Amino acid sequence: MTTGVGRRVVRVAVGDNGYDVVVAPGALSELGERVRALGGVGPVLLVTNPTVRALYGAASEASLRSAGIDAVIAEIPDGERYKTMVTLETILDAALSRGADRSSVVIALGGGVVGDLAGFAAACLYRGVRLYMVPTTLLAQVDSSVGGKTGLNRPQGKNLVGAFHQPSGVLADTSVLATLPAREYRAGLAEVVKYGVILDGDLFELLERSAERLNAREPALLGEVVERCVRLKAFVVERDEREQGLRRLLNFGHTVGHAVEKATGYSRLLHGEAVAIGMVAAARLSENLGACGPDVGARIAALLSAFGLATAIPADVDPAAVIAAVAYDKKAHGGKVVFVLAEAIGRCVQREIDRGSIRGAL
Amino acid sequence: MTTGVGRRVVRVAVGDNGYDVVVAPGALSELGERVRALGGVGPVLLVTNPTVRALYGAASEASLRSAGIDAVIAEIPDGERYKTMVTLETILDAALSRGADRSSVVIALGGGVVGDLAGFAAACLYRGVRLYMVPTTLLAQVDSSVGGKTGLNRPQGKNLVGAFHQPSGVLADTSVLATLPAREYRAGLAEVVKYGVILDGDLFELLERSAERLNAREPALLGEVVERCVRLKAFVVERDEREQGLRRLLNFGHTVGHAVEKATGYSRLLHGEAVAIGMVAAARLSENLGACGPDVGARIAALLSAFGLATAIPADVDPAAVIAAVAYDKKAHGGKVVFVLAEAIGRCVQREIDRGSIRGAL
Repeated sequence: MTTGVGRRVVRVAVGDNGYDVVVAPGALSELGERVRALGGVGPVLLVTNPTVRALYGAASEASLRSAGIDAVIAEIPDGERYKTMVTLETILDAALSRGADRSSVVIALGGGVVGDLAGFAAACLYRGVRLYMVPTTLLAQVDSSVGGKTGLNRPQGKNLVGAFHQPSGVLADTSVLATLPAREYRAGLAEVVKYGVILDGDLFELLERSAERLNAREPALLGEVVERCVRLKAFVVERDEREQGLRRLLNFGHTVGHAVEKATGYSRLLHGEAVAIGMVAAARLSENLGACGPDVGARIAALLSAFGLATAIPADVDPAAVIAAVAYDKKAHGGKVVFVLAEAIGRCVQREIDRGSIRGAL
Repeated sequence: MTTGVGRRVVRVAVGDNGYDVVVAPGALSELGERVRALGGVGPVLLVTNPTVRALYGAASEASLRSAGIDAVIAEIPDGERYKTMVTLETILDAALSRGADRSSVVIALGGGVVGDLAGFAAACLYRGVRLYMVPTTLLAQVDSSVGGKTGLNRPQGKNLVGAFHQPSGVLADTSVLATLPAREYRAGLAEVVKYGVILDGDLFELLERSAERLNAREPALLGEVVERCVRLKAFVVERDEREQGLRRLLNFGHTVGHAVEKATGYSRLLHGEAVAIGMVAAARLSENLGACGPDVGARIAALLSAFGLATAIPADVDPAAVIAAVAYDKKAHGGKVVFVLAEAIGRCVQREIDRGSIRGAL
């Protein structure tokens, strides 16, 4: 293993044996040796999309080949609207028709959609094979690649079907963030802001101080920010893998965020963009309910704006459609919604609230 | 809870809290109170098929209603060939479009197909909701309802996609076996014979002595046999939930059995009928490889015949198709197959064998 400058390793002590998240520029070149080191590796399936494959497919395959791994490639379409059962079947059939067995490893090379689908495929295939995550978006590096949530969308809402299936390892190559489209990068920053709001006031202040340097994707700063977010995520999932309590805090901004995504047909806003809108709505709701003062929402909105993110529901989207979509949120039951409210920057709380009170915050 | 004559309860110490398997005539009337006793029960989905619904749907719904539970019914078609992703989606959508949430309970009222699909739906829905099993076939009562295996078939083979998802409880009403078609009942006896062969020579001898009484479905004997099988199953899954070792013994007869099912399009033979054929093939293979003497296969074949089960591949089925199907078995890798061989009645062993040697046994 290379031990380059800026290499950071976060251990996640969850699942059967725990796993390492490697955060480092250029880490993609280690992919083959990392997967080989899992031991007893059978047929390998590499799941990716055309965009990521064009950029990093050759390097990934080269690294795998140099470790003696000849991976089958399953290419799936790019975009949240393809997070469907049909795409899952594409992955499963690519694996099954090319000789996958119980010792197979599924590699997810891509963003959140690739990770969620490849992860669910790994969870289902032979009732569970190993999964190795290579997140290529900021959002996937700081959030979705760690913690074992996998799944897909249904007509009734996002991520309604899936599994908890921890990866056997995560390789976050921060160099690949340089090629991320500006919009995708900004969307990832929304989730970074979220960690600051709910768990880490110092991180939030770092983001406020360094917004310009982050907008410029300064490599050393990016490495630090990704590592801090991964450590926060690991802290949470180690204490609550199955989202019975603490982990629900990570849903800050997501109840309204998911509803906005649904109301806009999963095609107009990126997940992080919707979460940005959802966080401001959640902060406003927190304020309305007396959970926090007015400065919290203002600071969140200002930071998101500094990153170029919109903070309000697009003017042509009907708020009633968003409110209706909240009803299908996984966290909803009996007309009530378990909502994460901000108490201060760096501190939040879960409370069961009436769906009606969300209306006011939108 | 009623404490009627012939009531038997087997505790299965696996999963988060373990669960009870209640084996008793007339137990279906307890369904509502049993499910209610799980605690915090949200919207309930009852998955069944038209045949079982006609016989036991009204009684099940009445029991649920008397416990204050108004279940949504999801009816799925009857038969192994419907163990597909499409049927899974039917169940998921019935749940999601009727307000299922994380506190929902999925009840599986039926045989192995209903249990496998309802179980997989429960495993996937919101990344896992509770599952309550009400097995109505002998096969489901003695085997598939206990132990948490769920899944569906793919064009490449049986049960290639699924999840381990332990039920929160199992209610095996032995009275319902009275209405089971003779062929289904016989198919269940094949799995009963399997327990005797692999783990319990005394059970095997009991079956040999009592074949006629079992063919007559004598209630007290049935209760004893179901309980003994459930205890054996619980013993195995408690020691190896994820089929890393011991649990593989339960696959005795299944490698060839699955292949025979596949080669006959999943529509001609019942699972137990295929397992009967597979067990005799496995015994013959065991003999060929010197693992056991010739009496083992002969006794297995004689007992299966006493139960009216065929013991050879149908004459018009091409053995080559069966051998090809073995390649897709979940337990196959690298041209080798992990096979369960009989050493004696009541004792078996796993061995990695060459696929070629299976040819001789067919």
